[in-house]
This record gives sequence, C-alpha cells and structure tokens, in this order.
Amino acid sequence: MWGGRFSEATDQFVAEFTASVNFDKRLAQHDIDGSIAHATMLGHCGILSEQDVRQIVDGLNQIRQEIADGNFMWQVALEDVHMNVESRLTALIGDVGKKLHTGRSRNDQVATDIRLYLRAQTDVILGLLKRLQTGLLDLAAAHTDTIMPGFTHLQTAQPVSFGHHVMAWFEMLMRDSERLIDGRKRINQLPLGSAALAGTTYPIDRAYTAKLLGFDGVCQNSLDAVSDRDFAIEFANTASLLMMHLSRMSEEIILWMSAQFGFVQVPDRFCTGSSIMPQKKNPDVPELVRGKAARVFGDMVTLLTLMKNQPLAYNKDNQEDKEPLFDIVDTLTGSLLAFADMLPNLVPNADAMRHATMKGYATATDLADYLVRKGLPFRDAHEVVGKAVVLGVARGVDLSELSLADLQGFSDLIGDDVFDYLTLEGSLNARDHIGGTAPKQVQAAIARGRERVAALPV
Amino acid sequence: MWGGRFSEATDQFVAEFTASVNFDKRLAQHDIDGSIAHATMLGHCGILSEQDVRQIVDGLNQIRQEIADGNFMWQVALEDVHMNVESRLTALIGDVGKKLHTGRSRNDQVATDIRLYLRAQTDVILGLLKRLQTGLLDLAAAHTDTIMPGFTHLQTAQPVSFGHHVMAWFEMLMRDSERLIDGRKRINQLPLGSAALAGTTYPIDRAYTAKLLGFDGVCQNSLDAVSDRDFAIEFANTASLLMMHLSRMSEEIILWMSAQFGFVQVPDRFCTGSSIMPQKKNPDVPELVRGKAARVFGDMVTLLTLMKNQPLAYNKDNQEDKEPLFDIVDTLTGSLLAFADMLPNLVPNADAMRHATMKGYATATDLADYLVRKGLPFRDAHEVVGKAVVLGVARGVDLSELSLADLQGFSDLIGDDVFDYLTLEGSLNARDHIGGTAPKQVQAAIARGRERVAALPV
Amino acid sequence: MWGGRFSEATDQFVAEFTASVNFDKRLAQHDIDGSIAHATMLGHCGILSEQDVRQIVDGLNQIRQEIADGNFMWQVALEDVHMNVESRLTALIGDVGKKLHTGRSRNDQVATDIRLYLRAQTDVILGLLKRLQTGLLDLAAAHTDTIMPGFTHLQTAQPVSFGHHVMAWFEMLMRDSERLIDGRKRINQLPLGSAALAGTTYPIDRAYTAKLLGFDGVCQNSLDAVSDRDFAIEFANTASLLMMHLSRMSEEIILWMSAQFGFVQVPDRFCTGSSIMPQKKNPDVPELVRGKAARVFGDMVTLLTLMKNQPLAYNKDNQEDKEPLFDIVDTLTGSLLAFADMLPNLVPNADAMRHATMKGYATATDLADYLVRKGLPFRDAHEVVGKAVVLGVARGVDLSELSLADLQGFSDLIGDDVFDYLTLEGSLNARDHIGGTAPKQVQAAIARGRERVAALPV
Amino acid sequence: MWGGRFSEATDQFVAEFTASVNFDKRLAQHDIDGSIAHATMLGHCGILSEQDVRQIVDGLNQIRQEIADGNFMWQVALEDVHMNVESRLTALIGDVGKKLHTGRSRNDQVATDIRLYLRAQTDVILGLLKRLQTGLLDLAAAHTDTIMPGFTHLQTAQPVSFGHHVMAWFEMLMRDSERLIDGRKRINQLPLGSAALAGTTYPIDRAYTAKLLGFDGVCQNSLDAVSDRDFAIEFANTASLLMMHLSRMSEEIILWMSAQFGFVQVPDRFCTGSSIMPQKKNPDVPELVRGKAARVFGDMVTLLTLMKNQPLAYNKDNQEDKEPLFDIVDTLTGSLLAFADMLPNLVPNADAMRHATMKGYATATDLADYLVRKGLPFRDAHEVVGKAVVLGVARGVDLSELSLADLQGFSDLIGDDVFDYLTLEGSLNARDHIGGTAPKQVQAAIARGRERVAALPV
Repeated sequence: MWGGRFSEATDQFVAEFTASVNFDKRLAQHDIDGSIAHATMLGHCGILSEQDVRQIVDGLNQIRQEIADGNFMWQVALEDVHMNVESRLTALIGDVGKKLHTGRSRNDQVATDIRLYLRAQTDVILGLLKRLQTGLLDLAAAHTDTIMPGFTHLQTAQPVSFGHHVMAWFEMLMRDSERLIDGRKRINQLPLGSAALAGTTYPIDRAYTAKLLGFDGVCQNSLDAVSDRDFAIEFANTASLLMMHLSRMSEEIILWMSAQFGFVQVPDRFCTGSSIMPQKKNPDVPELVRGKAARVFGDMVTLLTLMKNQPLAYNKDNQEDKEPLFDIVDTLTGSLLAFADMLPNLVPNADAMRHATMKGYATATDLADYLVRKGLPFRDAHEVVGKAVVLGVARGVDLSELSLADLQGFSDLIGDDVFDYLTLEGSLNARDHIGGTAPKQVQAAIARGRERVAALPV
Repeated sequence: MWGGRFSEATDQFVAEFTASVNFDKRLAQHDIDGSIAHATMLGHCGILSEQDVRQIVDGLNQIRQEIADGNFMWQVALEDVHMNVESRLTALIGDVGKKLHTGRSRNDQVATDIRLYLRAQTDVILGLLKRLQTGLLDLAAAHTDTIMPGFTHLQTAQPVSFGHHVMAWFEMLMRDSERLIDGRKRINQLPLGSAALAGTTYPIDRAYTAKLLGFDGVCQNSLDAVSDRDFAIEFANTASLLMMHLSRMSEEIILWMSAQFGFVQVPDRFCTGSSIMPQKKNPDVPELVRGKAARVFGDMVTLLTLMKNQPLAYNKDNQEDKEPLFDIVDTLTGSLLAFADMLPNLVPNADAMRHATMKGYATATDLADYLVRKGLPFRDAHEVVGKAVVLGVARGVDLSELSLADLQGFSDLIGDDVFDYLTLEGSLNARDHIGGTAPKQVQAAIARGRERVAALPV
Repeated sequence: MWGGRFSEATDQFVAEFTASVNFDKRLAQHDIDGSIAHATMLGHCGILSEQDVRQIVDGLNQIRQEIADGNFMWQVALEDVHMNVESRLTALIGDVGKKLHTGRSRNDQVATDIRLYLRAQTDVILGLLKRLQTGLLDLAAAHTDTIMPGFTHLQTAQPVSFGHHVMAWFEMLMRDSERLIDGRKRINQLPLGSAALAGTTYPIDRAYTAKLLGFDGVCQNSLDAVSDRDFAIEFANTASLLMMHLSRMSEEIILWMSAQFGFVQVPDRFCTGSSIMPQKKNPDVPELVRGKAARVFGDMVTLLTLMKNQPLAYNKDNQEDKEPLFDIVDTLTGSLLAFADMLPNLVPNADAMRHATMKGYATATDLADYLVRKGLPFRDAHEVVGKAVVLGVARGVDLSELSLADLQGFSDLIGDDVFDYLTLEGSLNARDHIGGTAPKQVQAAIARGRERVAALPV
Repeated sequence: MWGGRFSEATDQFVAEFTASVNFDKRLAQHDIDGSIAHATMLGHCGILSEQDVRQIVDGLNQIRQEIADGNFMWQVALEDVHMNVESRLTALIGDVGKKLHTGRSRNDQVATDIRLYLRAQTDVILGLLKRLQTGLLDLAAAHTDTIMPGFTHLQTAQPVSFGHHVMAWFEMLMRDSERLIDGRKRINQLPLGSAALAGTTYPIDRAYTAKLLGFDGVCQNSLDAVSDRDFAIEFANTASLLMMHLSRMSEEIILWMSAQFGFVQVPDRFCTGSSIMPQKKNPDVPELVRGKAARVFGDMVTLLTLMKNQPLAYNKDNQEDKEPLFDIVDTLTGSLLAFADMLPNLVPNADAMRHATMKGYATATDLADYLVRKGLPFRDAHEVVGKAVVLGVARGVDLSELSLADLQGFSDLIGDDVFDYLTLEGSLNARDHIGGTAPKQVQAAIARGRERVAALPV
C-alpha cells in the first residue's frame, strides 16, 4: 500500500515483526463500523457519490459477515486489520473500494477503532460490576447481624457485622464504576478526520461522523488526536484500581478459607485440588485473581511507559498499545465474571466468626468509651483498659469474663452495668451513625446502595 | 499513648523505624483543621461541653501558630504528627486535651488529613495548569501562521502551523485538568467518624463535620473509609499522565533546540552550561522534567503496589503512602511552575522551520489529493506520487521544483494548476475543518480554548 | 486428578478460567524431558521396575513425537500441560502411566519445566546477542575514522568517531551478556524432588536427576524450591536492561534517520511507508523496538508484584508467571533478531556527520585545553573560550573560522599554533587513552571486543 | 562555572529546580576520594606539579573534615556537590584549586562518585544480610524438630519442621547475597577519564586512578561510561528481589501473630499499639517492611524508566538517578537492621503449631504413599485417600482418628501398620533426602548454610 517510494521489498522477518494483524484483527467489527460511518459521511458531503457509498457499505457488510463466519482470510503481508479489510473490499467491489481511504489515514482510523472497542468494553465491564455489586448487596442483606471480628493489622480490633464488611467491598467497587464512567467521557471523542496528523483537504463533516458513531464530540486538535492514548492509560489505571480491590477481597477470602480462620466456605465448584495431596481443597479462583492483579499493573506500566518521551504525532511505538489493552480487558472481564459467580455463594460460618470475636478483646474500646462516659478523659481510659487486657491475657479470659471486682481494681468508675457494654451485640449496636457497623445502619447502607446501583447509567 | 498493654518499652531503633513524624508533620495544619472541626462537632452534639471545646480550639490555634513560627518541638518518640499535636495540646490545656480523641482514631484522622492535603494541592495544581495553558494559548495565538514540518515517525509528514502544534499540547493539559477535577470529587469525602474501623459509640454527627471542613459528603462505610487510598492512587495516575505529557513536550523542545533542528530558542535563564565544554547551552529544564516523569511513574507504582493484597481494614503498610504522595505533589508543582515560566518564552525560528518544511516532500499528500479530485482513486494516486518522490530524491529537489513535464510523466491528469497545491500555505489552508491545521481553524480553537479554561472551576 | 475429595464438579467457567494448558503447553518438550529423567531416576533407585521405566519412557517419547507432529489433542479439562501429558501416557501404556507421578508433585514439576525452558532460552538469547555484537564490531571497524558530533544534552559536545559510538552500544550489550550468564547459574538448579512442598517419602536421588538434566546442582530447601521464582524475575530484570539499551539505540537511529540529522540511511527493506503520505519512509523497526521495551518493563513489574506478600509455599498466583515470561522471551528474541539483521546494514552519511560536527563549536574544549597547556587554570580557560563562542555565534562562524587576532582578543596566550588544535582530526586523535575516541584507541577496543565475545561461554 | 557563554543569569527558580546539592551532598566523601585520586594521578603523569597536587590534596582533606564536622556551607547557587567542593577548594588554596578539574568533567566525576557510594553500600548491605542469615541459622537450629503445618494455597498441606521453614527464608537471602556480589563486579569499574563524553586530551593514566580507588578495572568506552547507569538499575533490581523476600517473610509473621494462627510471639519491643483500642499489639515492623517493598519497586521502576530512550551521552535526566537510589539504600538498610534484630527473637508456639497440624489432614499424602508401596498406582491411591478425607471431614476427625475398619472400607491394602505412617513425626522423618524436611536433613542444611555464609566475600 506504500510501494511507490520504495526500491526493495520489505524483509520477510521485518514484515512479520512489524505486522499487527495477528492481534488487531480483534478490532475488525469496530473498524468496519468506522469505515461505514466514514463512507456515509463522505457521501453526505458530496465527496463520494451515493452509488459509490452504497457499494462500499454493501461490501463492508459482506466482509463483516465473512469475519463473523470465520471465512475471512487474514494476511500478515497486509500488515494490519485496516489493510486486510480494505484489500478485501477492493477485491469485492473493484476500484471503488480504493476510494474509501479518501480523507483519512490509518493514524486516525486506528485511534477511532480503539475508542469504539474500549467504549464497548467499558460498558460490558460496568455491567459485570453491577452484577457483582448486586450480589454483594444480597449477601450483605442476609448478614447484617452476623458478627465477625473486625481487624486492623490483622489483629482483632472490634466486632463488626459481616454485612458491613461486605458493604466495604461494595463501596470499593462503586468508586470503580464512577471512575469508569468518568473515563468513558474521554474515550467517547472522535479522532477520525484528523487524517495522518494535520487534517484533510476534503470538505469533511466530522460532527456528522461523530453522530453516526455515537460519539459525544470530536477531538479538537488533529496532531493530538492521532497521538493521544490517554484514554487507554486512564482505563488501565482504573482497571488497576479495580483489580487491586479484587486482590484485597481475594486475600480475605483466602485467609477466611484457611483452617485457622474457617470463617467461610466456598462451594467445591469454585475450587480445585492437588495432584499429590488428596485432602486439599484450594481457593484457586481468588488466588488466581490476586495474581492477575499484578498482570494488569504490568500492562498499565507498559502503556504509560510507551508514551513517555514520544514527540508528536504518531510513532510506531503506539502499535504496542493494543496487546496490553486487550489483556487488561480480558483479565478484568474474566475476573469479574468469576467473582460475580462466586461471591454470592460464599457461606459464612457464623459460629466460627462469633467464637473468634469473643477471643480477641474486641470490646476493649467499648470499655474505654464506658469509662469516658463516666468522666475519665479518653487517654486515661485507654491506659486503664490496657492494663485490664494484660490481666485477661495472663488468665486466658476475655474482658467480659473478668469479675466486677477485678475490673474495679483498675478503676472504681466501673459499675455492674459494664457488662452490657462488653457484649458483642451491645458493641455492634452502639456504632449507630452513618458508616457505622450497627445492623440498622448497615441495612440503611444496603438500601442506599441499591439506589446508587440502579442510578448507574449502564 | 498505648502503653498499658505492653510489658517492655519499644526498641529504640524500632521506634525510629516505625515513626512517621519526620515526614507527616507536613500535614500539621490540616491535622489541626480536622481536630478543630472534630471538637466543634463533639460540642455541637453535646459530647463535650462548650467550655472544653473552646479550650481545645484555642489550644490548637496556639499550636498552629507555634508550627507556623517554627517554634514547635517535634518528637520522634511521639510517633506521628497526630500524637505530637495532641501531646502538646495536653501540655498546654491539661486533661481537657485528652478529650479531643473522643470518638475518633488515628486511622480516620490520618485519612482525613491526607484528603484535606490532597484537596488543597489539587487546587494548587489546577491553578498552575491554568496558568500554563493560558501561556500556551498566547504562544499559539502569536503563531497561527508560522509553518513548521509536522512529523510522524520523526519523518517530515505534512506542513502544520506552529500554533496548531502548541494547541496539541494545550489539549493534553485540558484532559489533565478534567481528570483532576473528576478525581477531586472522590478526594472530597469525609472519613472522620469511622474511628478505628467500625465507627464509634458516641452520638456523632458526621455530616456536620463534613460541612465544617468543606467536604462534599461522608464516606459511607467505616471499614472502607480507614483503609481506602484510592483517591491517592487516582491522583498519582492523573499525575503520571500529566508528567507523561510534559515529557513529550520536553522531548520536542530538546529536539528543537538541537543544532540539527534549530526550531526554537530558549532564553539563557532557563538553561545551564557545562563545567568542561565552554560552548554548551543545555536544555536542562525540559531534560530534568523528562526525567522527573519517571519519578512520578515510580511513586505511582509504589502506591498501587502498596495496597495490593491488604486485608481490611487499616494496616501499617499504609504509612508508606505519604512520602510518594508528597514527592508527586512536589515534582508536579515544580515542573508546572518551570514550564509555566519557560514555555511562553520559547522563541520559534520561523525561517528554520519553513526551510525544514520545504525539504521533506511535505506536500506529497496534497498532490495525491489533487489527483483524487481529478478522478483517480486514492490508492492509485498514492502510488503515482510515491514515484514522483523517488525522482525528487534522486534529483535532490522538492516536488514543487519538478517541472510540469516531469510530473505529467507520472500522470496525465496533472495540469499546471498543480503548483497551487504544492505550496506550503496552500497545503495548510486546505485543512480547513474542526481540528485541522488551517490558521483560521487554529484561531477558532484558541478562542474555544480560552472559554474552556475560563470555565474551569478553579 | 483430584476428584476424590470433592462433592461437585468444577464450574465450567471456573475450569477454563483456572486452566493453564492454553499457554503452558509451550513447556511440553521440557515437561517430557523432566518426566523421562524423573522416571529414569525412580528406576535407578529401585522405586520403579526397569520394565515400568522402559514403558514410561517409550510412551513419553511417543507423546513427544505426537506433539512435534501437531497430532496431540490438548484438553482444557485436564488443566495444564502436566496432566495432559500424563493422561495421554496412561491412555497409551495403561496403569503403569499412573506410577510416573510417584515422588513428585505438579509444584516441583512445573518449577523444573520453567527452569529448563528458561535455560534453553537464555542460551538462544546469548547467541543472538553474540551475533548482534559481532555485527557491531564489524560496523565499528569500518568507521573508526568517520567523524560525527558527540552529544550531551543533545547539544553538540565534542567530535567523536562513529566507530567509537558504535562501540558504546557494544559495551552495553556486553554487560547484558554478563548478566545473563550470571543469572543462568541461578536458573540451573533442580527443584524436582521437593514434591508438593516438603520433599517425598520415597528414597529418591536428586543429584542423579540433576545430572541427567544437566543442572549444576539441586535446590537446597523444598519449601523454597516450589515457591521460588527469583530466577524468572532476575531474567526479566536483565531483559529489561537489555531492552532499555535497544531503546536507546533505537532513539538514536530514529534521530539520525530524520531529515534534520540525516546521519544514517537504513535500507528500504527494514522500513515501511504510509497509507496516506506517499513520500514517507519510516524507521518502523527501531520505533517498534523502542515501544517493545515498555512491554518488557511491564512484564517485569508483573512478575515482581506477583510474588510480593505470598506466604510459603506454592500459591495459585504463581500460575500467572508464565505468560509474562513467555512474552519477554518472544519480545527479546524478535527484537534481537531484527537488530542483528538491521544494524550491520546501517549506512552512515559521513559528509552529513562531518558537516554537523563543524557547526557546533565541537572543539571548544580543545581550545580550553590548549590554554591550560599555556598555563591558564582550567576554570579560567573555560571562561575565555565561552566568550569566544559568543562571538562565533554572533558572527555565525565556527571557532576555527575566527581570525587569530579575534582569538587573541580573548587571551594573549593564543598563538598561531592554535588552529592545529581546532581541527576535527586533531581533536579526535588527541583523546588517546583507553576508552578515548582516538581512532587507534577505537581499533584497540574493537580488537579487545572480539576477544571478549569469543570468550563468552555460548 | 559556565558563565562565559551566557548573556543572562539563570532564573532563580530554575537555579533551585535544577540544582542537586540538597541531595547529592551525600556523595561528598566519595567525591573527595575521587578528586584526591584524580589529582594524584595528574601528578603521577606530570600534568600537575607535585606541589600543586600536595596543595590540592591538603585542601580536599581540610574540606573533608569541615563536612564531617558539619561546618561546611553548602550553596544551592553552586548547583551540586562537585562545584561546592571545588569552589571551597579554590577559596582555600587559590588558583591552584582551579587546576583540579583538568582532564575530567562532572559527567565522569559524578559517575565515579555514585559507583564509589554504591560499592560501599553494597558491602554494608552484604554485612547486614550475613547478620540476618546467621540469626536465621540459629533460629532454625533451635527448631529442627518443632512441627508446624506446611501450607500450599494457605491450606494445610503436609507437616514440616519450623526449622525447615526458617531455612527456606535463609535460601532466599542467600540468592540475594549472590546477586549483590555479582552486581558488585559491574559497579566496580572506573568511569573517570572519560571526561565529558569522549575522553581527554591530557596524557592520563586511568589504570593508575583505578588502582588508587580500588576499582577492578576501567570502563572501556567513554561515551558509554558517562551515560551508563546499568549498575544502579541492577542494584535496584536485586534490592527489589530482596524486599520481595522480606515482604513474604513479613506476610507470614503477620499471619502467625494473628489470634487465628497464634504460631509465634514477637516481643513487645518490636510492636506498637493503638491510640483507640487498648488491647492491640500490632506487628508494625513486618507490616511496615511489607509496605516498604512497594517503595523499592517504585524506585526501581523510576530508575529503569529514566534511562529509556535516552540518546548518548549524558543527559540531565540522569540527575534524577540519585534520590531513588539513596531511597533504596536507606530502605534496605533499615529493613535489614530491623529484621536482623527481630527475627532471632521470634518465639514459636510449638503447641499451637502442632495442634494446627493435627487438624488439617496433613498426613493424607503419607497415606497415599503407603498405598503406593502396597502396590496401588499413585493416581488410584490419591483417589482412595480423597474419599477417606471426605469421611473425616464429615465426622470431624483426622485420618489417624478413623478406625482401621473405616480405612479398610476404602482399600483392603490397608493394614494396621498404617497408623505409623499417619503420625506427624513419621511423616516428617520420612522426607529424608537433600532439601527434605526430615530433621536430620534440616540439621545438615544448617551446617552447610553456616559454611556458605562463612565463605561469602564480605
């Protein structure tokens, strides 16, 4: 397609090394969508005749079908998806096919294709997120009163509701949805019409093409439009945060499935075993997702690093943007699908959780707060309770198992009403403000969550 | 502050190794802002007496002044900024000071501090961006008709206006502003009231505190609120994109300042020399900024990696969030300041640019488009022009310097009107659609740019 | 293979999501090598009968052939390469096939496979590096006297020989070879025999297996052996440095091929053109390699991040080690092949280089050194020459084009012998010590380089 | 120092923005070492007089003392450590001081300084590693017979010795030592004499300088020598692997200190508490080190990214190499020191570990191996045991608690000798080969470990 200026053919290895069709053929349907809109616009503006446009569109639709049916012959010698499609078009409809490339370049064409692809994938991912979030809301709703130990530093801290914990996951994902939606605005701008880098000499109507393709607007500067990959990096960043969240959830599920915690069961169908140890039932899905987070981080580093130092406008380095992007999308989609299936099927072991909460002095803060209400400054109350804990550790008992006399040995402000504050339910119910773990607050959070998910524009 | 439970003092090296005051003291003013709002809310809710609140607020304001005056004695033994301030407060106002920590924890306190800090810094950065963008608009406005070679693959591609090129930079920065503004929404949510992880047993009013501190809302889940650092990572991501943009601008300025390009001069005051080579005038500022982009990328990787796999809620790993974040803010602020000063002072060398444009067959596409208008399909026109270029290369002349007869040797569609299309001005003016490089389009883009900058909520 | 303990079948999507056979089948030949060695060792130790061993080895060799011939039926339901091979083995030879897994686990098996793979690939890469280095030595040898401007800060600094510049590339690659060789020692240790994590109850002889497979030794701790991926990360690090070097070489070639520099030509067969701009001849190969460096960096980040925080011993996260590793190997191999073909075919344009060197005050340091020899302290000489350069810039002439009177106006130490020092050849020849750019030093460096390459153990 | 060529002073902000003295002053002693060696060589070669050399060396030694005493006035206006020292030298000894810079440039000077610094720090780190490894050997030696559950997928897998587990850590660190030693060879090459980029016109003797400074050799190419930062990146890579190892150890210690595991105690002096929860004793040190691993990863990404795409030779980007490098060194040194103190003081809770091992069907593989010895193929034995485990889970008992009749229900190959194989000690002792967990193998590994550590060249 650029032979005129060259005196020798491309080296065979170089041809393969620089070709992208093996991976960018994934963009084929979007490429055809873009080409149909471009041809339609050229007709609309009188640059091509109506008849030419009709032939081109029919030819492209036939190619679309060939690809869908698996009958399309991809050729590495034609470099990329664009030339493969265009070459086939000319084979099908003759010289008219050569007119399709009027007023555009592969530089703006590929930028358009990636944006169409990423817009579609963003919507798929938003749908999967919504499904996962809905599953979490249901799981939380079933366990607003199930008590488990809340941890900081992986040490028992205070009793929390399992539903409250699940709603923490929900919140993380809500931010991911919001970021995807914010990023979608920047994806959904049309580069087509920027041609190679400077615009084109044909009297094109970019707003018309944008409308045909559902874009919110057109890229405002041709040099920027062909070289900009911000939207892909921003997506990669958002994806990294999402995978980081899934890695945190995975870590917890893995911990909880250990014999030592025993907080949840995951149904056998989400686990695998060992080729050597017959007793094993391994949390493969969360482990794999935890690992896959690293993969998305790496892809994101690739995309960002790729663009560093590039002078305007398009450079061939940019061809390396597609594989990491596709890998992120595949990883995200698979991980979300696996989680959306698995998480609603987590079976918490309420007894084990309750038992664990009893053992960790989880109500020590409640005792301190009790003393504050009796008039002790918080810092002093903290000191008093710390000493009571040391006695408990020494005796191997929880605070609620110490006698009133023992407790009063640390502070004479303690009365026999203290035991009400040292129960798990008392502790839980007392954290009764927005964001707190009191079951009625969790119920309210779930209700709000359902509304927020329903309001997402997916 | 947590001595009651411990039977031996912290190892001296461990105390220093785990202390954060050496860097988190930078948050002091925000910590005091948060504490004043917290105390005011405690008074508002009747948890503290009005008199207690007054004493606390007065004490905190005194500490604020001590810090501003450089008279505050920071102590590593007190671990962090929070305990340094609180300890000083108790020294100043006695036991009442110990009541300040009622209903909060360092976990929600530090999360609040960082958000206040990052919100303020976001606004500073938005202001610097606006200043830099305004400088670019002015520079572009002065050069809508200055012609330079547009490059792809660093090979001369087509003539573009220098103003158009500058506006490509403007567009990049506009997206950075938009991303900062989107991220600010997620920064500006109040974690305070989440206490250690589960909320507090005091009847607090989080919405009231949020209002006092100018937050848009409250974090909806206490476990999430104390462990969430998404907002910092999102900021780091946006900062990385911004620095990537500056690295691209830097690369171009460095190229253009080389003897080989000679496209721009940078005033001496932005350059430095060599200790050994007396003739050198080096583009230190863009080189350094190009290098600093790598630094921000690294900080971002740190922040993201830090959070991977962490179980809820707060873990000590999170203490490592501050230094990379501060480093990003400092790097961004310095780089933007340097660029905002330097870029409007770039002096393009219009002659050198024009001369370079003449030499690179920059109007070859125009010749192809000319042939298309005469009826040749684009692909065939491309082939014809490729052969004409080969002749030009062989003779060492530009296309416009070939004779009509020579040109007609490649296609008899060529008439003597062809030379109008081969001038640089003709080529430039012909790209006359939104986003194109025609000077009147660039002027329109500048006008729209001024409106868009004015509309930014900074 | 682990069904006994499970009460329901694996979810279909989970089975696919967690399966690795689609990518780890690339390890098949190494897996078979390892299995043959393992079975042979089991026979040697009397754990299996000689007849069993013979059957197993014959079966494995048949499978090896089936795979090589493309006749092997890979099944996702069998999870990975190991179970696919073992399952086929049992189909071929019956129950004896089930004895192969005696005394090993997939955990030590896969670790062995990857090490065998990476050892082989290291040797391939070392061979490609050697070929590229030899090409560079030849190119340098042809141009020890070709003068070009040496740059710092992309500003003309001092004249250097093009051969000297090429030898700088050679040095970079020499370090890469050394690092690969150092890393190979740590790859070449046998994990097999570690079984799942704790070793095996069979009386195995690991040293014997190691000898059969050509390993230098055995991994000393079973827990470490099954969870260690250091060798892969170290390889990724070395690969990243290598790609960083290629990115630097690429950047220079791209610069030099620009119309502005015009220092080298790259034959057409290594370049591609534009679909829209008929005149374009783009340096696709170096651009693509420059981009691919980012890809290897990302893969390396993935591998390192993957291992962070993993408790011992094997976790499923590790399954994510293979794809980035394969991607690194493919990228490295392709990039080295392309460079080994292309670089010896670079055609420097000696006239353009010489002309550029004349224009940049490249001999200013020589003038300063001249003044030092006449008795001026270096710092003062530097100041004098700086002023002479300002005069040259003002007049648009090089230092050697200023008159003796003009030069003496800056220092009366200057005599008419000064012009000998201001020639390019004089400047070049004067840097006559090991590592310097004097042609005879470059010739000596090339001679040493040939010996060093010959001494590489590849 | 480069004023002659410039017509206006450096902008004040630019001067500060581009200055490095605030961080590179850390290199001062190394800078002085390098300068003394350089001056001595200049005297040795007759380039400076003996008297000049003596004055310079005396002046530099005085400056060394001023810096050590904290009496040196660092000036940002002098840019960097080099010019600060040289400027002070001239103030002290007059014009002779200006001769020190003869035949060198800041480019080769700073490269020399960093190498001297990094060589010294490598040796410090190797010493700390050795101390930590020795502590691990002692800890392992005390616990070769202490039984704990070995995990894969964080599920109980097989019994292992605690000493064996500790020795896995030892092995990781041994590889780190080896990599540091390998990298040290590449650090320890002298760049000095490369001057700005091309070598110098003075008759210097680089081998002599190398010998004075203890370098193994000289960098072979001046262009490469001033632009090479491979040694720093290689160090960063090795540091990242080391921190990754510490992160894995940290993760395990944190898990083991949780109430759920309860496997180890860490003395109070290595822990800190909570400002709100009086009962907390948090594993701050391992948490912080786990977080700090991310920091080193980020620094490494910075260093690597910094060098990508840089054309030869020195560019200002390289100034950004120092802060990440210093940060890595500080982080590594602190983390190793903390671990070297803390790890030998881990107190394993042998009862809790044993109890946990009993509960997880850890001897299931032993039962399968038992059946293999009785003639069942391994895959069939695995299936049989899997079913026995299901029965155990259903009854809530371990395999050793099932009756012989129950066991024989799964296979009539089972005899009453089976119970010998189901004990923890039996399982442990049976893994009796190099790398296995049998106590006598662990003792042998410890003995070998002591020899290997003693043989390290530190």
